[in-house]
Amino acid sequence: MKTDIEIAQETTMKPIVEIAQKAGLTADDIEFYGKYKAKIPFSSMEKVKDNPEGKLVLVTSINPTPAGEGKSTVTVGLADAFNRQGKNVMVALREPSLGPVMGIKGGATGGGYAQVVPMEEINLHFTGDIHAITAANNAIAAFIDNSLQQGNPLNIDPRRISWKRVVDLNDRALRHVTVGLGGPLNGVPREDGFDITVASEIMAVLCLATSLTDLKERIARIVVASTYDREPVTVADLGVAGAIAMLLKEAIKPNLVQTLEGTPTLIHGGPFANIAHGCNSILATRTALKLADIVITEAGFGADLGGEKFLDIKTRQLGKTPDAIVVVATIRALKMHGGLDKKELTTEDVPALERGFANLERHIKNMKTYGRPVVVAVNQFADDTETEVAKLTEMTTELGVEVSLTQVFAKGGEGGLDLADKVSEAIEGPAQDFHYLYELDKSTEEKIEAVVTKIYGGAKVNYSPKARRQLQEIEKNGWSELPVCLAKTQYSFSDNPSLLAAPSGFEVTVRDLIPKLGAGFIVALTGDVMTMPGLPKAPAALRMDIDEKGLISGLF
Amino acid sequence: MKTDIEIAQETTMKPIVEIAQKAGLTADDIEFYGKYKAKIPFSSMEKVKDNPEGKLVLVTSINPTPAGEGKSTVTVGLADAFNRQGKNVMVALREPSLGPVMGIKGGATGGGYAQVVPMEEINLHFTGDIHAITAANNAIAAFIDNSLQQGNPLNIDPRRISWKRVVDLNDRALRHVTVGLGGPLNGVPREDGFDITVASEIMAVLCLATSLTDLKERIARIVVASTYDREPVTVADLGVAGAIAMLLKEAIKPNLVQTLEGTPTLIHGGPFANIAHGCNSILATRTALKLADIVITEAGFGADLGGEKFLDIKTRQLGKTPDAIVVVATIRALKMHGGLDKKELTTEDVPALERGFANLERHIKNMKTYGRPVVVAVNQFADDTETEVAKLTEMTTELGVEVSLTQVFAKGGEGGLDLADKVSEAIEGPAQDFHYLYELDKSTEEKIEAVVTKIYGGAKVNYSPKARRQLQEIEKNGWSELPVCLAKTQYSFSDNPSLLAAPSGFEVTVRDLIPKLGAGFIVALTGDVMTMPGLPKAPAALRMDIDEKGLISGLF
Repeated sequence: MKTDIEIAQETTMKPIVEIAQKAGLTADDIEFYGKYKAKIPFSSMEKVKDNPEGKLVLVTSINPTPAGEGKSTVTVGLADAFNRQGKNVMVALREPSLGPVMGIKGGATGGGYAQVVPMEEINLHFTGDIHAITAANNAIAAFIDNSLQQGNPLNIDPRRISWKRVVDLNDRALRHVTVGLGGPLNGVPREDGFDITVASEIMAVLCLATSLTDLKERIARIVVASTYDREPVTVADLGVAGAIAMLLKEAIKPNLVQTLEGTPTLIHGGPFANIAHGCNSILATRTALKLADIVITEAGFGADLGGEKFLDIKTRQLGKTPDAIVVVATIRALKMHGGLDKKELTTEDVPALERGFANLERHIKNMKTYGRPVVVAVNQFADDTETEVAKLTEMTTELGVEVSLTQVFAKGGEGGLDLADKVSEAIEGPAQDFHYLYELDKSTEEKIEAVVTKIYGGAKVNYSPKARRQLQEIEKNGWSELPVCLAKTQYSFSDNPSLLAAPSGFEVTVRDLIPKLGAGFIVALTGDVMTMPGLPKAPAALRMDIDEKGLISGLF
Repeated sequence: MKTDIEIAQETTMKPIVEIAQKAGLTADDIEFYGKYKAKIPFSSMEKVKDNPEGKLVLVTSINPTPAGEGKSTVTVGLADAFNRQGKNVMVALREPSLGPVMGIKGGATGGGYAQVVPMEEINLHFTGDIHAITAANNAIAAFIDNSLQQGNPLNIDPRRISWKRVVDLNDRALRHVTVGLGGPLNGVPREDGFDITVASEIMAVLCLATSLTDLKERIARIVVASTYDREPVTVADLGVAGAIAMLLKEAIKPNLVQTLEGTPTLIHGGPFANIAHGCNSILATRTALKLADIVITEAGFGADLGGEKFLDIKTRQLGKTPDAIVVVATIRALKMHGGLDKKELTTEDVPALERGFANLERHIKNMKTYGRPVVVAVNQFADDTETEVAKLTEMTTELGVEVSLTQVFAKGGEGGLDLADKVSEAIEGPAQDFHYLYELDKSTEEKIEAVVTKIYGGAKVNYSPKARRQLQEIEKNGWSELPVCLAKTQYSFSDNPSLLAAPSGFEVTVRDLIPKLGAGFIVALTGDVMTMPGLPKAPAALRMDIDEKGLISGLF
């Protein structure tokens, strides 16, 4: 079987100007980054701002398992199917982070015949957006430490600096560090740590900003530390909001690329779906909605994390809710939720499928509570048996939702035509009221409780003593009106990654509440949430190479 | 008076395709990065490889002072003067590092009417090359720490890891850190430190590589640590040379931009001129030589650092020596070398000028020993008096070299026409033999002695006990044939920054010898060499801003 990179390299890409034209933009409307990538400047976004808005389809999934779900693959395949049907369709995706690419994943731009290209460049530095975010994030850190060094005029408590440095790599040795060692000329010693760049608040800010002015205002509001008097210290206090926004002036423009089948695709921004909201940028999604009749987008991790945050956080900034929600599942993954080991997946096991179906069932019910039609996409694998497929179809149909078997990995858009038909029906159905999970005027505790009990299926929320104090500070500082962003393991509805399928009766403990004033949400940390991944024993990088002509191998 | 950024923003840039055409390249030969920047791919470099080579002019300077010399400004102005004279000329420059831009400099693309544009983008992220270098450098670090964590199969001594992490920022708090804290899941604790990216060996490697294959081989040879048995550990041993070269596949392509007067300019790479060789890339200089009849390039810091390294390190890889050398001086800076304070420069002071002239004199004599014609460019300031100008001209002429008064800051190429005439005469004179300062078959000690006694004017080289041991290791490992790269303060010929003008009789102490096998030179550290700058009390970033339309202010 061909690898993803081989399939991608065999495909003849269209010049990006043709892709732009397909999306209604001229060569003058885009900024070229080589022949196959372009940025869309503000002047072009301005030009199309009064266009009617297309329909929005959110692709989300069951809780991920090591068996793989193929959410991006389905997203791309669904768009390619619409494209084959002659629809004016666009994709809006997050961009891959280099850390996981070099570490385990080896690539994150779909798979098989449902990919976004040029995959090598999108997976590596792309148009430099994540690097600009790294630089902006670390510049803020340097200004904080410089302020300490230069007499500490802001009265910053060095023990209470919450702003961490970042690298776009998996590097566990940077999780806990001490900086400022080496005597009085080399800074003020303090404990510090690094996150991976996609966990930076700058990433979330860039993805939620609606203009350069909004970007600068969000940056100014970011809380980076507290004073000895426990007052928040912001980027505005450091005096560098303008400089930091300046560093992001190119990164904030959406990037245009294409699928293997030539569907115009915007890839822009990639915040984590645990400690951030896990969706591509507002500007990219909005621009796609102005250019296309149908926009397919996805949110990170499962529907409990990225899905919930798309609906309760992103749509509030976007001013648009999805017209349909696609939940992706695989029979393999559901069998793992039913208790099988990854090695046991090649044998038919209907009882395991039935047990694991509980995971899909809860996600379907959750998504329906928002008032939008749900379609289930079953991403088919060669090992799936007819009996298993029939059983899954039967169980899903009993829930009153459409189910479609897709083979986009093997067949591209051709393998998603039935899904496209079912999504078409869904988005063209009668309009229904959209129901947020919570209203913004509820307290932070009430919002967290709504997510835990209504989406996760938990019984109760506990707070650490620290989190209790932080709830009071949030109240005192007037931040209660912000939505909440729960950081939780992606593998389970609960905060325990080993509780698969649809656990209930569990309690969730909030350890820490982090106000992200720039992003505009309160992060609630539950369990151990990894903000800096480590490398495995044999990193994916070991098999990567480049030849004398620049041809790359080893990215999947 | 207008600021540099105001002048730059008032200028209408030509589309980069027109600049490419002027340099003999078509639209298909370049990869666009927006409308005003492009990369030159290997296929285009291949296409012109049999073109005849143009003449090469090296611009260097006296030892820098806080009064400023304007070396980049003269480089650009000289090229623009040739351009006005209808010559086929190109510029080859280093790219600015973000750290100094945000810290003190505020910009590094020439000044006044002799600038390279788009200055905002060149000064900020440009085409992402430095970010790619940061990522490649830090990926190596992550692989080292991961190897320690995963059972340490290479037997790396964690106390003897020489590979440091980097950020492209001024951040003194990162000079000395401890990493790997937080228990067994979070790495192996060890002392570490960060350099600024331009000090990374990856930067030197990128600038000296002649092809993708050469790049990968250089990366493989980089020594990152030693084992408990004191054997060198390389990137090849880590198994990631291919992956790291892959990360640099775009960064290694030269970047095409333009001067304010439309002269084609390649800006590519920017290694420090103390712990590295301080010149733009071999690929950029070579490509410019194939495209233009005259190429103007510059080397970092004074002629004792960047100049010497250009001549003894870079030309050996380039396969081409300069046809003329321009030494830039200002009357203000020479008066500071003569003992004046920066505040005293507005008053005429011929005796101070005469004392400070010793600095220029030694640089002129040094450059002449290489067997190439030298021209002195006096970058004129409004405060320079007629008497001072006459005195400087007289003293310089007595040394048998041409001197030209230039006003390129105020007048652009128009202010450099006389300099262009004198450089023309120099490069068209009869060919002379080129003399390297040392032959490669000399020992490391003999090479260092040659630089210290013949270029710096020092009396003697001392070695720390550590450096003595390292000399033996260099011999033992067979690295003696490499050229040497002395890391020394840029402010003085000596290793003491306060010894201005032309000190003599001093001794230089080599504290440490660092084999840079990828770059292909042995770094000899003398005095305190800063590889991670700090921010000042009021960083330049405080005045930087971006407005709602994306217009930037506060870059100089």
